[in-house]
Formats: sequence, C-alpha cells, structure tokens
Amino acid sequence: MTVAVYLPADDKTQWWVDMLQALLPGWVVAPMEAMTAPEEVTYAVVWRPQTGDLARFANLRAIVSIGAGIDHVLADDKLPAGVPIIRTVGDDLTQRMREYVALHVLRHHRDMPRQLQAQAERDWHAIVVPVAPRRNVGVMGLGNLGAAAARTLADLGFATRGWSKSAKSIDGVETFAGPAQFDAFLSGCEILVNLLPLTDQTRGILNADLFCKLAKGACIINCARGGHLVEDDLLAALDAGRIKQATLDVFHVEPLPADHAFWSHAAVTVTPHVASQIDADTGGRIIAANLMMFEETGTCADLADAQRGY
Amino acid sequence: MTVAVYLPADDKTQWWVDMLQALLPGWVVAPMEAMTAPEEVTYAVVWRPQTGDLARFANLRAIVSIGAGIDHVLADDKLPAGVPIIRTVGDDLTQRMREYVALHVLRHHRDMPRQLQAQAERDWHAIVVPVAPRRNVGVMGLGNLGAAAARTLADLGFATRGWSKSAKSIDGVETFAGPAQFDAFLSGCEILVNLLPLTDQTRGILNADLFCKLAKGACIINCARGGHLVEDDLLAALDAGRIKQATLDVFHVEPLPADHAFWSHAAVTVTPHVASQIDADTGGRIIAANLMMFEETGTCADLADAQRGY
Ligand SMILES: NC(=O)c1ccc[n+]([C@@H]2O[C@H](COP(=O)([O-])OP(=O)(O)OC[C@H]3O[C@@H](n4cnc5c(N)ncnc54)[C@H](OP(=O)(O)O)[C@@H]3O)[C@@H](O)[C@H]2O)c1
Ligand SMILES: NC(=O)c1ccc[n+]([C@@H]2O[C@H](COP(=O)([O-])OP(=O)(O)OC[C@H]3O[C@@H](n4cnc5c(N)ncnc54)[C@H](OP(=O)(O)O)[C@@H]3O)[C@@H](O)[C@H]2O)c1
Repeated sequence: MTVAVYLPADDKTQWWVDMLQALLPGWVVAPMEAMTAPEEVTYAVVWRPQTGDLARFANLRAIVSIGAGIDHVLADDKLPAGVPIIRTVGDDLTQRMREYVALHVLRHHRDMPRQLQAQAERDWHAIVVPVAPRRNVGVMGLGNLGAAAARTLADLGFATRGWSKSAKSIDGVETFAGPAQFDAFLSGCEILVNLLPLTDQTRGILNADLFCKLAKGACIINCARGGHLVEDDLLAALDAGRIKQATLDVFHVEPLPADHAFWSHAAVTVTPHVASQIDADTGGRIIAANLMMFEETGTCADLADAQRGY
Repeated sequence: MTVAVYLPADDKTQWWVDMLQALLPGWVVAPMEAMTAPEEVTYAVVWRPQTGDLARFANLRAIVSIGAGIDHVLADDKLPAGVPIIRTVGDDLTQRMREYVALHVLRHHRDMPRQLQAQAERDWHAIVVPVAPRRNVGVMGLGNLGAAAARTLADLGFATRGWSKSAKSIDGVETFAGPAQFDAFLSGCEILVNLLPLTDQTRGILNADLFCKLAKGACIINCARGGHLVEDDLLAALDAGRIKQATLDVFHVEPLPADHAFWSHAAVTVTPHVASQIDADTGGRIIAANLMMFEETGTCADLADAQRGY
C-alpha cells in the first residue's frame, strides 16, 4: 500500500509522513509531490489538496481528510468521483472543541472583553451578568463536535439549545431540526456557536438575516468554517450594535491576511484555527488505524458522505 | 424584629434595605446608621462592618454576612462574643463561582493572554497546548464553592485535584487533606485555584514558598480573599517566570488602588471581586429565609463556626 501525503505547509508534510510511516510498517508513505508512479498510490492523506492533485491517482482506494470536515476535499472540482472519503475524528479532537466552546461562551457570557478593557483603564467596574441558567446559548450542528459542545454548555449550567438537520435528543439541551424550526431556534439566542459542516446548504448561513433573528446584542462564535460567515454582514452588524462581539477561529482566507479588518476590531477575537487542532501524535494514530481498517474491511466508521457533503 | 443593614457603599445599603423589608413583612429593616434605639436591634446584615459597630447592639441574636466568607466580620476585634454568624450561600452563588473558575482555568489552559497578544500583533500564531486530561489543575478548599468548582473542572476533562482540612471524596477529583499532604497536592500542579476561607491558618498561603512547589510556569487564580496572597511574592515570582500568569478577583485593599502594580502587569488579570456576586434579588431571598428560619428555630443550615473561622 502506498500513501501520498499532502498539506499546504511543507514543514508539516514531512512530520506527518514520518509519523504515518512509523505507524504503518510495510506500507510506503511519502509526500505527494515525491510520488513518481501515480498508479501505485492507493491512499491519499490530505489537508486542502490542490485542484486536480487527487485525479492523478487512478488506483486510489480512499482519501483521508486530516480533519473532521471534508469541504476542503470536495472543493476540488476535479475530485475523482466515487472514491470514499474518511474524516479524522477522535476523543482528543472532541475534547479540544469542548474546551474552546466552553472558554469562549464563558468569555462572552461574563463579558471578559469589557472586563479587560476596564482593567486597562484601572477602572474597578463590576459587570453584572445573569447566571448561566438565565443565559440562552445555541449550538448549530449537533454532530460529533456540536453535540459534545452542547452537552458541555448544559453541564456548565447554560440554558442550551441545539439545531441539526435530523431531529436529535440530547440530555439537558432543547433541540430543533431542519429549516422549519430554524427561526424558533434562533429566537432569543444570546450566544450562538456554529459547528455546522460547510455544504451548499450552510455556506453563508451566518449572515445579516440570521443576525436579526437573534437576541439584540448577541455574540457569535464561529469555530466551523470561514465559508459559513458573510464577513461584511458581521462587520455591519457589529457596527450597528446588533451583534455585540464575535470570536472567530476560521476564515475565508487562512492565515487571515495581515490587512484584514478583523485583526484590530475591538469587538472581534481572532484565533488562528486552533479550536480543535490535530497533532501528528494523536491524529497519526487515528489515521493509521482508519487506513488499516479500511484496507482490511473496505470500510471504516469515520466514512463521510460526499453526496451529503459531510 | 429589627434588622440593621450595613455595607460600605451607601447606595447599595438602601437597595438591600428595600429588598429585605419587602421580604420580611412585619419586621423593621433600616440602615445601621439610622438605628436610634440600638437595644431594639435583633439582627445585623453586614458586609465589612466597621470596628465596634456591632458591639453597640446588646440584644443581637445573629449576624448575617452578605457573602460566603465571615472573615470580614471576624476582622472586627470588638465583635460581641458568642453571637451566631450566618453566612450567605446558595445555588446562584455556587453557579457563578463555577463559571468564574471554569472561565479562568480555561483561559490559562489555552493561553488566551498570549493568543490575544498575537492578535494585537496580527500574528497568525497557533499556540499548541496539551488536552485538558493532560493538564494538572488544583483547587485549594473543597467547601461549598471549591467542591463545586473542582467537580466542574473534572467534568470539563481536566486532571483535577483538591485540598481541604478534613479528607473528602469527590467524583473524578484526586483529594488531599491537611498540612501533611500539602506538598503532594502542589507538586506538578499547573493551574492553582484558591477557594479557601481566610483564617489564621490560611492567611498569606499564596507565597513564594508555595509558588516554588508548583510546576514551573504555573498559573494562579485567587477568587477567595486578598489576604491569602503575599502580593510582593507574586510580583517577584511573575518576574522570575516561576509563575506565568495570575488572575486575581480579590485584593488586600478593595477597590484595588489606581496606582497598584497589578492593574498594568502584562501577566495579571484583574477582576473587581465579581467571581460570585450576590445580587439583592437572590441574595435578599436567601438572607430573608435564613433570618426567618433562625428567628423561628434558633438555628439555620448556613451557620458559620466563629471558632474555626469559617
Ligand atoms: N476550528 C476547528 O479547529 C475545527 C476542528 C474540527 C472541525 N471543525 C469543523 O466543525 C464542524 C463540525 O464538525 P463535526 O465533526 O461535528 O461535523 P458532523 O459530525 O458531520 O456533524 C454535522 C452536524 O451538522 C448538522 N447539519 C448538517 N447540515 C445541516 C443543515 N443543512 N441544517 C442543519 N443541520 C445540519 C448535522 O445534522 P444531522 O446530525 O442531522 O446530520 C450534524 O448534526 C465542521 O464544519 C468542521 O469542519 C473545525
Ligand atoms: N470572589 C468572590 O466573589 C467570592 C464569593 C464568595 C466566596 N468567596 C470566598 O471563597 C472562599 C470559599 O468559600 P466557601 O463558601 O466554599 O467556603 P467553605 O464552604 O467554608 O469551605 C472552606 C473549605 O476550605 C477548607 N479549609 C479551611 N481551612 C483549611 C486549612 N487550614 N487547610 C486546608 N483546608 C482548609 C475547608 O476544609 P473542611 O471541608 O475540611 O472544613 C473547606 O473545604 C472563601 O474565602 C470565601 O470568602 C469569594
């Protein structure tokens, strides 16, 4: 078995190659660009592959996304049809996302941005906020990450609601499903967390229309994909005070360009796509196990659905 | 029954008087300074009473602390001996402290101070931290607030330990008790939360000696009392890099004086004693219920132990 590895950042590619090679004795693992015999490549392990890259491999059995989302693979319009896509999920990734969501919901809930501003002004100014059970928090997307995040918020005491495509039942979380219940889900929501996959249905879902349906002065946390957010709509909503603050981990262009308005916006917190980082240690083990499972059985638990888009 | 109310901030006093009067029909509730017949006063509801204030009331049946701690009452060296002290605790207060501790432990865990610094520099710099199960977090004091905080941290996934006077057993928390197990509790601890009461045994416990026993570069969160911290020791430990960051909610002098070094220290987050604020709504109901219970039965569940100091 031959595994081609591609990541846009060169330095990281070799790190993943070494890790996977150590975990897959007897397999050949190499950077994609070093593959001289494309017909020998049976698996591709990729993050943001370039258009046409994967089409070169005629005998590809599966594509592994180095991440939970597969949007970056589907973005390749020359993607070979019918090749199964395996996503990378696991306890560590879920744990990291729970931490990120809990941290940033609590930051907005207790208004840390304004509290830090008061400190900068040496102002002993107590900001009074309701207790979490009187704070309405919503999570869009109740998959692997969204369901765990919603449960964590409910455990912290927040009045938590969630929205997904199909109906779900999660302890302590009020659930809504489908377009018909979208407005009810948004209504009164004070802190909104996005954990949807990026698909044709969800692209640009964080837009002016949605912002108007939340509680006035709501906060937005986008830790899914940059394509979910209409950036200009957010800037306008922040300026109008309709949205109070936003924490953004993902962007249309990453790294976020140095001249982007978000960097210095007083109401925007920028984190560099770190909500739930995969490290080669844990990620390598998950991917190697998935590859061996797929090679042996022709399937694996973490298969994505390319038709559905996630 | 006559209730004298005292808080150092005048504007707040009337607010508490009105709230308690509404909840205690048939009782007389008034600001302490308005009490013309001290012998009629049967209860005092106080926050930081002035020395000698309470000794004026010969027929005092109980003193209510507007807060969980009673150190501010015991600080009065003319305090009438033997008068029961009722502290103010309740679900809302525990909830708020859980939020504060979760927020600030997560902030230090994910190194938000450095992440925000990177944002200020338009630097797309991913800070890689271990997952919470590989992060050692310790809680000093496992009473009402400390036990709830420790459980919350364990639920968030942290490797959580706790320390108290008597041995405790808390699900998912490694517990230590007494001076004999203090060093073992501190050893390897990366984020330390203080929720001890302020007593002769615990005054100045956050000092150079303790800082040296933690993991190098540990973070400190003090949300108990300012008197627990030796401020100069912390400043020295921060400068030496022995302690990386501190979040402080309580101080020797409150409000924190405008010229204090903490305000502008890059490694210190200052919050204005808001970890678990009592509002007159909830706090008023708790205090009124405790007063009625005490008046009827001569005791109540939230009695503190003046001998023990908490
Ligand atoms: N920032 C980071 O570091 C980071 C790290 C990892 C992942 N992510 C992103 O996080 C997001 C969530 O990942 P995941 O693994 O939790 O996804 P997942 O397991 O595929 O779950 C997706 C959820 O979204 C729901 N959904 C999909 N389309 C929908 C629609 N049109 N309307 C309503 N609900 C819809 C699904 O509903 P059903 O349950 O009914 O199918 C499901 O609950 C993805 O965008 C991923 O790329 C970000
Ligand atoms: N910042 C804020 O907004 C805020 C708000 C409310 C309260 N507070 C402060 O929070 C702190 C905790 O309050 P609480 O209501 O949780 O207190 P509590 O219920 O009285 O519990 C105190 C805990 O500390 C332990 N302890 C006492 N002395 C000790 C010693 N010498 N060595 C080891 N452990 C010792 C006790 O052990 P045992 O269980 O064995 O007795 C108990 O577990 C207090 O300082 C209070 O003033 C701050």
